[in-house]
Amino acid sequence: MNQDIDTRITVTPSAYAYPLLIKQLLHTPRTVAADQEIVYQDRRLRYRDLFERIGRLANTLAGQGVQPGQTVAMMDWDSHRYLECFFAVPMMGAVLQTVNVRLSPEQIAYTLNHARADIVLVNAEFLALLEGIKDQLETVKQFVLINDEPTAPATTLNFAGEYETLLAAASTDYDFPDFDENTRATTFYTTGTTGLPKGVYFSHRQLVLHTLAVAAQLGSAPTQGRFHRDDVYMPITPMFHVHAWGLPYVATLLGVKQVYPGRYQPDTLVKLISDEKVSFSHCVPTILHMLLTNDSTKNVDLSGWKVIIGGSALPKGLAAAALERGIDVFAGYGMSETCPILTLAQVSASVAADDHVAQANERVRTGYPIPLVDIHTVDGDMADTARDGKSPGEIVVRAPWLTQGYLHNPDASEGLWDGGYLHTGDIGTLDAAGCLQVTDRLKDVVKTGGEWVSSLDLESIISQHPAVSESAVIGVKDDKWGERPMALVVLKPGQSATAEQIKSHVQTFADEGHISRYAIPDQVRFVESLTRTSVGKINKMALRQQFTA
Amino acid sequence: MNQDIDTRITVTPSAYAYPLLIKQLLHTPRTVAADQEIVYQDRRLRYRDLFERIGRLANTLAGQGVQPGQTVAMMDWDSHRYLECFFAVPMMGAVLQTVNVRLSPEQIAYTLNHARADIVLVNAEFLALLEGIKDQLETVKQFVLINDEPTAPATTLNFAGEYETLLAAASTDYDFPDFDENTRATTFYTTGTTGLPKGVYFSHRQLVLHTLAVAAQLGSAPTQGRFHRDDVYMPITPMFHVHAWGLPYVATLLGVKQVYPGRYQPDTLVKLISDEKVSFSHCVPTILHMLLTNDSTKNVDLSGWKVIIGGSALPKGLAAAALERGIDVFAGYGMSETCPILTLAQVSASVAADDHVAQANERVRTGYPIPLVDIHTVDGDMADTARDGKSPGEIVVRAPWLTQGYLHNPDASEGLWDGGYLHTGDIGTLDAAGCLQVTDRLKDVVKTGGEWVSSLDLESIISQHPAVSESAVIGVKDDKWGERPMALVVLKPGQSATAEQIKSHVQTFADEGHISRYAIPDQVRFVESLTRTSVGKINKMALRQQFTA
Repeated sequence: MNQDIDTRITVTPSAYAYPLLIKQLLHTPRTVAADQEIVYQDRRLRYRDLFERIGRLANTLAGQGVQPGQTVAMMDWDSHRYLECFFAVPMMGAVLQTVNVRLSPEQIAYTLNHARADIVLVNAEFLALLEGIKDQLETVKQFVLINDEPTAPATTLNFAGEYETLLAAASTDYDFPDFDENTRATTFYTTGTTGLPKGVYFSHRQLVLHTLAVAAQLGSAPTQGRFHRDDVYMPITPMFHVHAWGLPYVATLLGVKQVYPGRYQPDTLVKLISDEKVSFSHCVPTILHMLLTNDSTKNVDLSGWKVIIGGSALPKGLAAAALERGIDVFAGYGMSETCPILTLAQVSASVAADDHVAQANERVRTGYPIPLVDIHTVDGDMADTARDGKSPGEIVVRAPWLTQGYLHNPDASEGLWDGGYLHTGDIGTLDAAGCLQVTDRLKDVVKTGGEWVSSLDLESIISQHPAVSESAVIGVKDDKWGERPMALVVLKPGQSATAEQIKSHVQTFADEGHISRYAIPDQVRFVESLTRTSVGKINKMALRQQFTA
Repeated sequence: MNQDIDTRITVTPSAYAYPLLIKQLLHTPRTVAADQEIVYQDRRLRYRDLFERIGRLANTLAGQGVQPGQTVAMMDWDSHRYLECFFAVPMMGAVLQTVNVRLSPEQIAYTLNHARADIVLVNAEFLALLEGIKDQLETVKQFVLINDEPTAPATTLNFAGEYETLLAAASTDYDFPDFDENTRATTFYTTGTTGLPKGVYFSHRQLVLHTLAVAAQLGSAPTQGRFHRDDVYMPITPMFHVHAWGLPYVATLLGVKQVYPGRYQPDTLVKLISDEKVSFSHCVPTILHMLLTNDSTKNVDLSGWKVIIGGSALPKGLAAAALERGIDVFAGYGMSETCPILTLAQVSASVAADDHVAQANERVRTGYPIPLVDIHTVDGDMADTARDGKSPGEIVVRAPWLTQGYLHNPDASEGLWDGGYLHTGDIGTLDAAGCLQVTDRLKDVVKTGGEWVSSLDLESIISQHPAVSESAVIGVKDDKWGERPMALVVLKPGQSATAEQIKSHVQTFADEGHISRYAIPDQVRFVESLTRTSVGKINKMALRQQFTA
């Protein structure tokens, strides 16, 4: 490109440049959806209330001294208040830190200090936790209490006030300024199984573009798994975790009814789905598994409920169980570093709706890239592997909404972006139709006799055994083969199976060519439960330590 | 905002910044839709061919000396070649000028000179036109011939070659560079009824954002008027006119089958709709009127065909006639200056599908703003008029895809953006539900006795008279009232009506309160046809000269 020529458009002085700021997502709902509902516990608000409360919250925070560039930390379950923070905090030019309340107190203290949080909004449920770490907090100057109970809790913390009281006293008018669209809007911490949590961060521009692209992809689905303006949305992936997959922004942009369930309890979730006619959600497989196996859900009609499954692979057995209940379940793929959505396993209309086997096969796949996502599977030299559905490579990606580094961690930032693509750390294949399939985490793949055995494939197969509730496969060191797979199996209540039966179940899949015969585990161990991380993923690091040490 | 603090996100050196360039729209179709079809006349291509031909076209143009920042002018009917230009030209960093071939030769020469076109790609159909003005062209250095006929036409122009021959000889590989997303991508000229054509221009960023927002809005419609990945798209608004409303970019992003009809001929259009199962289009009311009244269409099943109507208001009578044929017709609103889409009249699911009167009422409205559009109706002091559906004001707008000025015309640019909002020059109302209704052009409104009478309202009412095919209302000077409305009426073939019958038809609407009694026209004149502009809009400027001089 000839750098001597200025080829940029001429901008007349009075023209509005329109930075991509989170506040711009509110133009359409403000105009067309002021009467739409937002539900939290026994509260029922309108979008017009949301808009007013966003103004009140900004005035409240400004009154507490919050300045542009400062960090507001939120510690709450999923609530309308969290939604207000999603907008008001970044719209002021401040940064919203969504605190993972499932981390250990020490990790929470670490993330608040590392993000340099200035003020913490905290639900009374986490008071004891916060009191326990308050002396470790290096930057926090203020606390605001969120309390759904009628009486104030006893506390040693010096609160600036209670959220609702402060909002009620604040003006609804706040002149949200324009500023650089690359301003940081949000920060949160990855929940890896090793080392200290790492901070990721997203700008206004990135969140607006993620919102538009997700809306475009979900909306343009011919039939299966589409999100539209008459849907009722309820997140079941926490709002502290990757913006609840960005869906609260999408839902607000489209002006749909929203339901916030507080802490996730199976009875409450199912009651909300039924009473509020929730039609669109997202969750990790563990939650779906819990909902389908909970006694309280047995007689609830869940048909028509659309659920994106992410965070971990969707096991085929779980997908089949959900389809039997009429749930429109499908996988999505992304991670903390990617805002998060990269791909969705929406099913083409060419797959017969009543062919449950074909449907389950399609829905458990990692999926198709959403607009603007440039995704590759590459070898160690960053060269594309064949798009034949069977040549694995590391999944690397470009999109306009990927974290541009790890917070205050230049070395890890450069590692993440080595070669100009974000490295997901996942191994996968792309097929000719553009479908991505994650086969394993780079660090979880079992390398046996020069072959890579996918622990995820193996888990999916084992989960299809009628007696199996869930399973995890880990690699154990082997002098001859390098590594060999070990299966840890949780049986369904009242069911039994032997290790030989599980192996012979896997053998039938190997005989049919679905998996290498090297994948048949040498050891099958039956366990009561599988160790999980704070966000409900199976913790293979811990399992390896437990079973192979 | 405290300007001392840099609140922008930290970008690690290796991170990819992801400028919003038109080439980025191709990532998903390249991955997921390589086998999808594109149809032009008897040619049937795949998306994989499109991608290759985009590379070939860029190499061809580079071979002809085209540099970043230079302008490539296209003179063709709607074709797959035009689609290639939509991508290849801006992706090189050059500017695509979409030439309005319906302008007069002098106006075309003016626009080519004013845009400083460097090279012209021209369909053989326009050879005589171009030969006639070649001596007036000040900047054009090269011509490339587009020829669908087997033999080369006789010409006095010195062509660099024929499009297909040049492409066949060129490499498919072109390394489209990254550059500033504010680089100019397209230019074309407004077709106002007064003065010289004015140039508008759009950047890569603007076109990408328009594409995403239109996809999000069309996709998220619950049922009516949605565009999805199994649709078949055919434009019937020319590609030279406001990017065919941007839908070719949306269609390509979503990977849908596309049909390009060449020159618009009723027989061909209807045959393509039927044979290729076209399900999504857009056109001006005149074209829809022509298709519905053409003998060749009488027995063609058009049910399920979705059509956005724009360019002029959708008359209720035409909407009703289309609904009777099962056509999913609805209005859209925008203009050359706005890329174009601002609003769409998608019907809420709360309006009964079988209530044709209610459906027509909803579908002819100007519509609801699409994502990111900030729209207002304002008085002369730029203060919002009441959102009550009856307080008119000038429609002003902000969106991330509005022309940032008129090309080489600083004064008109500042007028367009007076006060930081783009002035549409339209008068309209917004109601509490967020629906915009254009009531008139600022310059076409009939001001009578201190009241504003909407010529569009009046035309819509007159069009509902059973004998009326179409009508235009203009203001004529009146000593007492300032102006009085005059109706020009085209009757349906074989039908008759008197001026008194038309007036009494309008009177019934005035009696029911739908329109002011001052709106009943003093004069009704019956005419054979209505004078139109080059893009098919009724030319009220000419009608005023003809009937009121």
